[in-house]
Amino acid sequence: MTQTLPVAFVGAGPGDPDLLTVKALRALQEADVVIHDRLVSAEILALVGSQTRLRNAGKEGFGPSVTQTDINAMIVEEALTGARVVRLKSGDPTVFGRLDEELDAVILAGLDYTIVPGLTSASAAVAALGQSLTKRGRNTAVRLITGHDMQGYADHDWRALAREDGVAAIYMAKKAARFIQGRLLMHGATPSTPVTIVENASRPDQRIVSATLATLPAVLAESGFTGPALLMYGLEPRDAVAHALPQVQELI
Amino acid sequence: MTQTLPVAFVGAGPGDPDLLTVKALRALQEADVVIHDRLVSAEILALVGSQTRLRNAGKEGFGPSVTQTDINAMIVEEALTGARVVRLKSGDPTVFGRLDEELDAVILAGLDYTIVPGLTSASAAVAALGQSLTKRGRNTAVRLITGHDMQGYADHDWRALAREDGVAAIYMAKKAARFIQGRLLMHGATPSTPVTIVENASRPDQRIVSATLATLPAVLAESGFTGPALLMYGLEPRDAVAHALPQVQELI
Repeated sequence: MTQTLPVAFVGAGPGDPDLLTVKALRALQEADVVIHDRLVSAEILALVGSQTRLRNAGKEGFGPSVTQTDINAMIVEEALTGARVVRLKSGDPTVFGRLDEELDAVILAGLDYTIVPGLTSASAAVAALGQSLTKRGRNTAVRLITGHDMQGYADHDWRALAREDGVAAIYMAKKAARFIQGRLLMHGATPSTPVTIVENASRPDQRIVSATLATLPAVLAESGFTGPALLMYGLEPRDAVAHALPQVQELI
Repeated sequence: MTQTLPVAFVGAGPGDPDLLTVKALRALQEADVVIHDRLVSAEILALVGSQTRLRNAGKEGFGPSVTQTDINAMIVEEALTGARVVRLKSGDPTVFGRLDEELDAVILAGLDYTIVPGLTSASAAVAALGQSLTKRGRNTAVRLITGHDMQGYADHDWRALAREDGVAAIYMAKKAARFIQGRLLMHGATPSTPVTIVENASRPDQRIVSATLATLPAVLAESGFTGPALLMYGLEPRDAVAHALPQVQELI
């Protein structure tokens, strides 16, 4: 009987290889096989060990659309051979990563597992804005929400978010932008609330585009984003804030 | 005139040195001075360069209570000498890190800055539970909230959180636990909702203790937590979940 090793579910972070954790980097270098998402950057895939096989769970061997069941099977099959398997997921596997479905499959196969958390893209995006996700006197909570769920556009607690101090990082929101805009305005959000779009956070092709709740769909349509983009609701780039400060000398 | 370098605001992550990002590790090794929080672990501070000075913003030179103004001044003074300054904050500096106050001081002093995001402790805590912060069919949003704000116990959108699928990581919540419990029950939360306490997430002395909304204050009182603890509202350790699965064979 082949001895199996724990399957490592590893966060690749937002894209900049320097934003991998030390633990993730080591896991990549020691792996026999790395099963990775389509969104994991080439720079990160270049860091695997010389003996490591790469398998693209977004395409390889399964045609254009790999189902979650296919991915689960790929992970289990590799692990049952005794290979040291890294399942590499962009961002943090625990945030909109469909981690649970893969964990269930691994556990059912009698395999052990470990989770190496990664930096979620909201952290990189907000750092690029020179802002915080939370701020004393402004917001004591931040939401990470998705624009889509299994039923289509995801519904949320719009009323709370529509309040003046609401801050949220909205993932997978490009197509849902007009829906999100409508829901927030309907619940009383101010049309001038800043919404900053951060595309390809932390990558060389990172792009930051300012909008407001009122202009969001038009700005998205004009800007032609093709990479993964986060909507930073309630936040604008710090430069814009600094110019608006009336009496900055009072701050210290 | 001394040439100044950008002040680097760097996330130390939850405590395990292997959960530093590659970028953070490099910043620590290249710094002339690292101004760190009290909560940053000794193992991480041991990674600074041989020429690096350490300054504890929690104690050193200012007696037991260092004010935010003192810390701001320390950062600016060091940077104005031309030193390569790393301001090292536990977790992610953008999450409950009082980053904005320090950024404002740095900008007012005419200094440049950079932000190196870090892993927030909620990511490490949820990974330790074998769970996800979000899960298809369960929750399409997760909240990071604080138990305390400038006015005392922080108020939140309890009604939304009290719904069956509500998931939140509650920071700085030990003292506020009874308040949080009362607010959530008042807004209709189920008393048996799981609340898992994760103390010292990712550190060798990490401790995971299961409670429910009903038992939370008693469990906290009994368990005598002394380290930083997160309340993972709506989440229990995966082992407990697995035992409750009725027909696991249907999952694949």
